[in-house]
Amino acid sequence: MLLSRYFLPVLKETPKEAQIASHRLMLRAGMIQQSSAGIYSWLPMGLKVMRKIEQIVREEQNRAGANEILMPTIQPSELWQESGRYEDYGLEMLRIKDRHDRDMLYGPTNEEQVTDIFRNHVKSYKSLPINLYHIQWKFRDEVRPRFGIMRGREFLMKDAYSFAHGAEAARIEYNKMFVSYLLTFQRLGLTAIPMEADTGPIGGDMSHEFIILAETGESEVYCHKDWIGRSIDAGDIDYASDLQPIVDRYTNLYAATDEKYDAASCPVADGDLITTRGIEVGHIFYFGTKYSAPMGASVADETGKIADVHMGSYGIGVSRLVGGIIEASHDDAGIIWPDSVAPFDVAVVNLKPGDETCDAMAGDLYEKLTNAGKDVLYDDTNDRPGAKLASMDLIGIPQQVIIGPRIAKEGMVEWKQRRSGETQQLSPDAALNALLA
Amino acid sequence: MLLSRYFLPVLKETPKEAQIASHRLMLRAGMIQQSSAGIYSWLPMGLKVMRKIEQIVREEQNRAGANEILMPTIQPSELWQESGRYEDYGLEMLRIKDRHDRDMLYGPTNEEQVTDIFRNHVKSYKSLPINLYHIQWKFRDEVRPRFGIMRGREFLMKDAYSFAHGAEAARIEYNKMFVSYLLTFQRLGLTAIPMEADTGPIGGDMSHEFIILAETGESEVYCHKDWIGRSIDAGDIDYASDLQPIVDRYTNLYAATDEKYDAASCPVADGDLITTRGIEVGHIFYFGTKYSAPMGASVADETGKIADVHMGSYGIGVSRLVGGIIEASHDDAGIIWPDSVAPFDVAVVNLKPGDETCDAMAGDLYEKLTNAGKDVLYDDTNDRPGAKLASMDLIGIPQQVIIGPRIAKEGMVEWKQRRSGETQQLSPDAALNALLA
Repeated sequence: MLLSRYFLPVLKETPKEAQIASHRLMLRAGMIQQSSAGIYSWLPMGLKVMRKIEQIVREEQNRAGANEILMPTIQPSELWQESGRYEDYGLEMLRIKDRHDRDMLYGPTNEEQVTDIFRNHVKSYKSLPINLYHIQWKFRDEVRPRFGIMRGREFLMKDAYSFAHGAEAARIEYNKMFVSYLLTFQRLGLTAIPMEADTGPIGGDMSHEFIILAETGESEVYCHKDWIGRSIDAGDIDYASDLQPIVDRYTNLYAATDEKYDAASCPVADGDLITTRGIEVGHIFYFGTKYSAPMGASVADETGKIADVHMGSYGIGVSRLVGGIIEASHDDAGIIWPDSVAPFDVAVVNLKPGDETCDAMAGDLYEKLTNAGKDVLYDDTNDRPGAKLASMDLIGIPQQVIIGPRIAKEGMVEWKQRRSGETQQLSPDAALNALLA
Repeated sequence: MLLSRYFLPVLKETPKEAQIASHRLMLRAGMIQQSSAGIYSWLPMGLKVMRKIEQIVREEQNRAGANEILMPTIQPSELWQESGRYEDYGLEMLRIKDRHDRDMLYGPTNEEQVTDIFRNHVKSYKSLPINLYHIQWKFRDEVRPRFGIMRGREFLMKDAYSFAHGAEAARIEYNKMFVSYLLTFQRLGLTAIPMEADTGPIGGDMSHEFIILAETGESEVYCHKDWIGRSIDAGDIDYASDLQPIVDRYTNLYAATDEKYDAASCPVADGDLITTRGIEVGHIFYFGTKYSAPMGASVADETGKIADVHMGSYGIGVSRLVGGIIEASHDDAGIIWPDSVAPFDVAVVNLKPGDETCDAMAGDLYEKLTNAGKDVLYDDTNDRPGAKLASMDLIGIPQQVIIGPRIAKEGMVEWKQRRSGETQQLSPDAALNALLA
C-alpha cells in the first residue's frame, strides 16, 4: 500500500480528552475517530487491526468446533420478556420503538436470541452438543463512556453459546471454550489469566474472566507471579479429548479479581503474589437451564423424555482488544504491535521521494517484499524525514526499512526493528533476506 | 466440514410466509431465520455466502483505490440536522433516545457521518481524491417489510463516498465506481445493467442504478436485448486511465427503469426491446456539494482559495445480493450458486455411512479434496439417501460426488454437476482429477 493513497490521518498533538495510552495512541495513529460519546468510527488502520484480531478469534472458535452465525443488532423485546430480563436489564439497554410502536432493543448480548434459534430447529439430544457464535456489534448505554473504545457504547463482541444435554456434557463444552480462549489470547500476543468471577446479569454458577495485566486496567487483580509469560502449547490440544486436566492446570495457579480476592484465605505467599490491575478481555459462563427452561429450549433424550438443554455463553471483546493490546504493548514513541495483529508487516520509508537512488531502492524493495507475500506500507509522501520516522514508530509497524539519500548512495539501507529499537545498516538484498527469513 | 458437525437446519416443508423463490429457498436451505418483521439471523451457510459476496465487493472496491473504514451503526442526530435531512427522512429512519435523552438514530446511510470524518482530517486539495467505503449494517424502517432479506429492515450495505476537487475530478471518481460495479457484479455471476435513475432522498444530478433482470423484481425495466449475457473484460481496466470510453460503452446501449422509460422516445426497435422486471443491487450518485457545503467540508486549492469538495456516494446491497443471486439462479430443486459465492465447492455425499467401502471411499475423497484446497461439505449423516440428494440440490453445491454402496462395490462414484444436472460414473481417482481440473 502506498501511503500517499492510504487514509492515515496521523495527529501531531496529543488529544486532550484521552486519559489512557491506548485511547491517546489510537487517536494519534489515526485509527479511530469519535462520532458521539462512546461511539467511534474505525479508520483504515484501526479497522485493519480489528479485522486481524477478529480473524484469529474466528479461527480459534472454528477449531474448537463452534459454528459461526450472525444475529441481528436489533432484537424484539418479546424474547427478553420470555427470559425475564427485559425489565431487569436497566438503563444500559438501548430501548427503541419502531414506526409501528413495537418495543425493540439494540442487543447488549444474545442469550435469548440464540435460544430462540435453537428451539426452532433442534429437537433431539442426537444433534447435541452445538456451539453457535457470532461476531457482531453490541450496544450498552454506559452512563459515562470513557477510555476510547475500551469502554464504549457500541462495541464489537464475539459471543458463543453452547447447548448440551446435561450438566456433564455442558462442562465439556465450557472446557473447550476455556482452552480456546487461552489459545486465542496467546495468538494475540497476550497473557490472559483466567480468574474465577461473579456471573452478574448473565447469571449461572460457573464463570471465568480472562484478564490481561495492565496498570491502566479497570480493576485490581491478584495473581501468582508464575503467571507472567506463561504459555500454552497449541500442539497439545485435542478438542475431542478430555480437556479437564488442562483446565485444572490453568485454574490451580492462583489468580483472582477484586471481588473474589480475600487476603485471609489467599494461598499464595506474599513474595509470590502480584497485585496489579487488569483489563477484562473475555468472560465465560455456565448457567445451566437459566434461559432454556423459561424459553422452552429442550430436547428428547434416548428414552423420549424431554429435558431442558444446559447452556453456556462465552464472550470476547473484539474491539476492546485493540485497546487492550496497546495497553499491554507500547512505549513513549507509540504502539508496538505483536506481529499477528500488526496493520502491516513491513514499512518501507523513502526519506527523499524524487531522489533517483532512493526511489529506485525503495520501489524495488516494496515490489519484492510485496511479491514475497508481505503486507507492506510504502511511505512515498513528501513529509519531513523526522515526521516520517516518528509516524512509523507511532503506528508501530514491526519491521521498518528506511531509505535515506546519504546511505542509499553507498548502496545501503537501514533496517529497524520496532520492538527493540535496534537498527542495522545493510545492503537492500541483505535487508530483504532478513525480512523474509 | 462434516455435515454432522455443521448447523444446517434444512426444512422439508415450504414455509407459507415466503412469496418469492429466494425467500422460500433461503428458509428451506437453513440460511436465515426471521427474528422479527424484516430482521433476520444468518445461519452458518447463509452467512458463509454473504461473506463471500462481501469479500468480492471489498476486493473490487480496493482495486478501484477506495479505502475501507467502518462507521458505527448509531449516529448522533446533530449531523443530520447540519445537512438538513433529519426532519426530511421520515418514518424510515429509526430514531432513538439514549439514557441521557439525546436524539440518536440507526444509520440508514452515511453521507453525513463520512463528511464529518473528512472535514476533521482533510484540508488540502493535495490529499484528494479520496474514496472511503464501509460495509456495515443499516436500518430502514420499511412500513411493510417483505420478501425475506430482499426488502428487510436491518440489512448489510457497502457504501462508498468519494471526495474530489471540482466537478471534473468528481466525474473521474464516479466513473471508477461505475466500472468497478460492472466488475463486481460480473464476479458474482450476475449481469447487472446500469440504468439512469432518479436520485431520491440522496439528492444530486447524476445517478445510475445497477439492476439484475428477474421476473420477481420490484420494478419494470426496459432494455436492449444485447444486454443479455454482456460481459466486461477485467484485463481491460486500468483505474489510472480515463474510464469515460468504458462508461460510454455501457451507457450507450439502451436500458431504463420505469421512472425513466418513455415509449414515445425509446430509441430501441420493438423487436430488440426486452420488457421485464429488475432487482436493484447497486446505486451510484454524484451530488456535488449537497453535503459538503452545509457541513463545511472544503479544501484549499493551489492558490489557497477554499472550495467545497464534490462528492458522490455508491451503494451495493450486500445482504440483498444473496437473495438477488438466488432469484437469478435457481430451479425447481433449489439454488444454483455461481462458483464464486457457493458455500462449498464440492459435496461428498456418503449414502450409507457405516458401510466399509462407502466410508473408506468418501473419507479418502474428502481428505484429498480438502488437502488440494477445496472447501468440501462431507455428508456423513444417517439421513435417507433420497433426502440427502435432495438437500444437496436444494442448497446448491456446484459439484457433488455421490457414493452409494452398489456402485462403490464396483469401485465407482457418481459425479454430479448441479447446474446442468449431468451425472457420470467414474472411478474416485477420475472424479478427483475432474474436480481438481
